[in-house]
Amino acid sequence: MNNPMPSWNDGPTKQSILDFVARVTQKDGPDFVPEQERIATFDNDGTLWCERPLPFQVLFAFDRIRELASHHPEWKDQQPYKAVIESDMKALGALGTKGLMTVMAASHAGGTMEEFDTILKDWFATAKHPHFKRLYTEIVFQPMIELLTYLRDNGFKTFIVSGGGVEFMRSWVENTYGIPPEQVVGSSIVTQFEIREGKPVLVRLPQLFFLDDGAGKAIGINRFIGRRPIAAFGNSDGDLEMLQWTAAGPGARLCSVIHHTDAGREWAYDDTALEKMSAVLKEAKARGWTVVDMKNDWNRVFPFENVQSVPRSAQAA
Amino acid sequence: MNNPMPSWNDGPTKQSILDFVARVTQKDGPDFVPEQERIATFDNDGTLWCERPLPFQVLFAFDRIRELASHHPEWKDQQPYKAVIESDMKALGALGTKGLMTVMAASHAGGTMEEFDTILKDWFATAKHPHFKRLYTEIVFQPMIELLTYLRDNGFKTFIVSGGGVEFMRSWVENTYGIPPEQVVGSSIVTQFEIREGKPVLVRLPQLFFLDDGAGKAIGINRFIGRRPIAAFGNSDGDLEMLQWTAAGPGARLCSVIHHTDAGREWAYDDTALEKMSAVLKEAKARGWTVVDMKNDWNRVFPFENVQSVPRSAQAA
Repeated sequence: MNNPMPSWNDGPTKQSILDFVARVTQKDGPDFVPEQERIATFDNDGTLWCERPLPFQVLFAFDRIRELASHHPEWKDQQPYKAVIESDMKALGALGTKGLMTVMAASHAGGTMEEFDTILKDWFATAKHPHFKRLYTEIVFQPMIELLTYLRDNGFKTFIVSGGGVEFMRSWVENTYGIPPEQVVGSSIVTQFEIREGKPVLVRLPQLFFLDDGAGKAIGINRFIGRRPIAAFGNSDGDLEMLQWTAAGPGARLCSVIHHTDAGREWAYDDTALEKMSAVLKEAKARGWTVVDMKNDWNRVFPFENVQSVPRSAQAA
Repeated sequence: MNNPMPSWNDGPTKQSILDFVARVTQKDGPDFVPEQERIATFDNDGTLWCERPLPFQVLFAFDRIRELASHHPEWKDQQPYKAVIESDMKALGALGTKGLMTVMAASHAGGTMEEFDTILKDWFATAKHPHFKRLYTEIVFQPMIELLTYLRDNGFKTFIVSGGGVEFMRSWVENTYGIPPEQVVGSSIVTQFEIREGKPVLVRLPQLFFLDDGAGKAIGINRFIGRRPIAAFGNSDGDLEMLQWTAAGPGARLCSVIHHTDAGREWAYDDTALEKMSAVLKEAKARGWTVVDMKNDWNRVFPFENVQSVPRSAQAA
């Protein structure tokens, strides 16, 4: 393959990915892994797409609350709806997790699965990111899309394992990432089967069924995939257990953490000073996992950027 | 393809399957379905393998209780364990669902996921079916294995959607059916992530997490697969909602019910008299779903049977 993953600069990070893939695909090599066991799992928010200024599903929830507000005049004076309608993030923050959960439930539950799918498709077709002024499905990381393709070209099966809602992702990831709905593991709410006018429907209830985050990611991988990944990619403490679970299997493993270091092209967060580092970054450094430095390892962040004619790697060489 | 599914006799049942596959795979035809949407779901107990004299997972639970009994001397005098140890099905039956659930929890929970996997692999490698005196993984329906292969050869992705425990199936179905673990939807118990001696483990708790049966099958399909099947196969009332959910989608659909009519080679159950018919068989007849008559539609039931040199279809012709 000529230069797989062109948006990745040459260097130890890209090399560690290429080396891992070479090892597990080399027939008769000591680290060979049969195709059916080449499972790679990816967090979504902050790993495959951007998660700033807020996780996009939260922004969807806000838009939805504002849309539903016309049917709920009482929300004007009622928290947490009032804060959302007025875009008063300070007031919403003061309401804590409970306030946000109320917003998520009110915006995600109520109708049938098909109705919700239509709402999502409409939103993804029209809503724009506040900073980039583009569709949310465009604010994805080009190097990660190339990595997904590269792994699949080498016999991997790629899965999303995200704290995000499973329907929220399934409505667009197949087109954007080439990951089919059945390879998306996510959080979900309780659904109820009903026959309405002779037709079966699934009704979305305002009750969490499964939170696919933190330890839930190892549990979710086991429950939904049933095989331990040999490669996993995350960026936050919610991905720690997925990476630990992946690392604990026998044979060659690739555990990788995306470090947001690029305040110019995206955002920079999570300090590199040890005492301020996230738990996942600390563990990555301690265990020698592959830490992706967005600023230095990626010559392109988003698909909509102009491709640089001379990538940094070539400049450095 | 020369005679796909040789264990199926020629006739309207086999023809309805062949016709459906021809319709959805014919490019430019009115019923064409793109490959990624060719999802087919199969119940397991009584659909892909035998479920008599009792569902095999219940027989596993009994064996496991008898094995664990040496560590639990108190079970000798304590129900429902006493009934299982003494193979007193009458006493166990008298304890109802609660008794059986206690047996299932005690036999399925407690250790880690890896320990349970070892227990299952040992059992499947050694335990024998009480009637056929063969490994349980041999008591599978040869015509259904041919059907799975035939559908996959035509671009379908085949899934199990079973009330059975997801780990119980995942330990052997890949070898036997060619269905990978990640395409098995089943019932599951609650698991807990722990770090033991520096190593992450998933501990199995004696608490049901998800019952993939009845309405749970439609819910499970939506949650785990995220796409509506275009073909579904079942045999009992626990499969009704899966078939209804499948039938309710737009375009060509294949809904099929396996009717156990062969007391000679397998078992005959579920009456053909309308007032005694199961709900799923009634609905199948009312809606024109494909009912498979095991006795007349299959010239071979199990892989271990001698293949008849002259299949019934040839005799009839």
